[in-house]
Amino acid sequence: MSTEERITLKHGAGGTAMVELIEEVFAAAYGDANAPRDDSARLDLTGPLAFTTDSFVVDPIFFPGGDIGRLAVAGTVNDLLAVGARPVALSASFIIEEGLPVRDLVTVAQSMAKTAAEAEVRIVTGDTKVVARGSADKVFITTSGVGCVLRDGISGAAAKPGDAIILTGSIGDHGAAVMLAREKLLDTDAISSDTAPLNDIVLSLINAECEIHTMRDPTRGGIGAALNEIAKQSAVGIELEERAIIVKPPVAAACEALGIDPLYVANEGKMLVIVSAADAQRSLDIIRQQRWGAEASIIGRVTSNHPGQVRIRTSIGTTRVVSPPSGELLPRIC
Amino acid sequence: MSTEERITLKHGAGGTAMVELIEEVFAAAYGDANAPRDDSARLDLTGPLAFTTDSFVVDPIFFPGGDIGRLAVAGTVNDLLAVGARPVALSASFIIEEGLPVRDLVTVAQSMAKTAAEAEVRIVTGDTKVVARGSADKVFITTSGVGCVLRDGISGAAAKPGDAIILTGSIGDHGAAVMLAREKLLDTDAISSDTAPLNDIVLSLINAECEIHTMRDPTRGGIGAALNEIAKQSAVGIELEERAIIVKPPVAAACEALGIDPLYVANEGKMLVIVSAADAQRSLDIIRQQRWGAEASIIGRVTSNHPGQVRIRTSIGTTRVVSPPSGELLPRIC
Repeated sequence: MSTEERITLKHGAGGTAMVELIEEVFAAAYGDANAPRDDSARLDLTGPLAFTTDSFVVDPIFFPGGDIGRLAVAGTVNDLLAVGARPVALSASFIIEEGLPVRDLVTVAQSMAKTAAEAEVRIVTGDTKVVARGSADKVFITTSGVGCVLRDGISGAAAKPGDAIILTGSIGDHGAAVMLAREKLLDTDAISSDTAPLNDIVLSLINAECEIHTMRDPTRGGIGAALNEIAKQSAVGIELEERAIIVKPPVAAACEALGIDPLYVANEGKMLVIVSAADAQRSLDIIRQQRWGAEASIIGRVTSNHPGQVRIRTSIGTTRVVSPPSGELLPRIC
Repeated sequence: MSTEERITLKHGAGGTAMVELIEEVFAAAYGDANAPRDDSARLDLTGPLAFTTDSFVVDPIFFPGGDIGRLAVAGTVNDLLAVGARPVALSASFIIEEGLPVRDLVTVAQSMAKTAAEAEVRIVTGDTKVVARGSADKVFITTSGVGCVLRDGISGAAAKPGDAIILTGSIGDHGAAVMLAREKLLDTDAISSDTAPLNDIVLSLINAECEIHTMRDPTRGGIGAALNEIAKQSAVGIELEERAIIVKPPVAAACEALGIDPLYVANEGKMLVIVSAADAQRSLDIIRQQRWGAEASIIGRVTSNHPGQVRIRTSIGTTRVVSPPSGELLPRIC
């Protein structure tokens, strides 16, 4: 098919037009030419396994620092890593709005292939649906992932008082980049999404046998939502140091202009890593040596005080509660 | 949350409103109260595994004989069964249009729970996105599935000349039911979707060690598309007997009124089973004893003639080619 074409309903109808789309766009980008074209892929894995899924509806589908394809692969890979699993295989299911340029779909598929290679994961199965113009917005992608659990017991429910909380870099980059791109306010290349698969960081920590209790990638709702979830799941308190949390100046300025708190803005290439105090410095050193971890820092501690609550000590020395966001935030950020 | 509410963007924003939706609708219907609320679920499985995914965009979301939830579970379960795997775990990811009544979502989630119980499969992980009104149509569900491969080598590429082709029941019921419901033409209860998980049929055949070469559930594109794919993958010819293929009279009448050939209409509770000639009758007897297989019949044979092509002998004795559909078919049928 030509990249000058647009997607039509026939590309989702189960016939030769759909087969052509799958072979020439998806399989061409990331398929295995020798794999049988069956309803399910076969994987030779031994348990225990991790299994996760995420739908991506980001608007716009192309933004500084990434696109919906890179996001879909990195997001699912990071969810597997967060439970201490090595990502192995992904599925990718597309819901496409009639009229989407095939060229855009090719770009997205190639971005998925590139990101999957970066994350050393294979996209092994998929599905394609096409809906009439106005019944979806350009393209939605759902990726599911299967991984091998390398370390048991890493969970949002396993943080312990005394643990250190490491954040692998700055916050708010993804959310700010998408918001500004959507509003066509992005006249700077200073703001760019952080979308990335974090295999190096997580697998290095596991290889080094660092005593990790909890990991979570702070996506929708930002570190504010993620840390509140962990505080609740683990029935512990969390104390953050504002000055240890990096917000790049253009991101801080954008958040201020948009009236949003960067603590609640989505990240797509960051991990919160909660480790025993004894392993905190060693873990930090390992993370900083990795490609996406150079700016990692210890942003706070887990405490037995105020269980279920997240507090932050501001740069002027006062302390405030970081409430869980209720939800009136940025839509379609991921 | 109240079932009188409607979904708003905050239900997809990663905050407390989203947690409430997940806990009170999805976890209440099919969740495991003891499972940790982490980014990935853990599964204790040993390989080889089957892995599959499907997005469901059916319109309307409720139709005679099923709904989008039952369809999403049965569709993914049947794709695992089709490669000879026992379905174990599903993920369920929702893209919801702002404004959807919570009541509808509860009904869909409960239908998924019921169908999952019928298929002896657990829904272990999920995701929820909400998009603005007009950016999606009510709700789209993507289910992925993991299963244990019980029998190796069952593939669309493994059909052999001489094999018998068994179809587990009538054709066109699902597509006709959805089309008529969409056009509000359904004033009869004589047409109803066949949506069902086919565990009993497939697992009984595997237990009985029937020599199955290929299985495929003929969904979008119907048996016409599925058999053409198999003919191509296996490089064999296929010869069908029209009189052995059951089309219920109201479905036949509906297809005629809509100007569509039932051979190309979607089924969601049927399986094509291609077995060695020696095991054909025994397999048919086993299928007919199962809940969804009472009307099974041998509808044709695999041949070494005309490889890649499907032919049908009509009831008046002539033979015509069943071409692969190009795609101008029924949109949003699954």
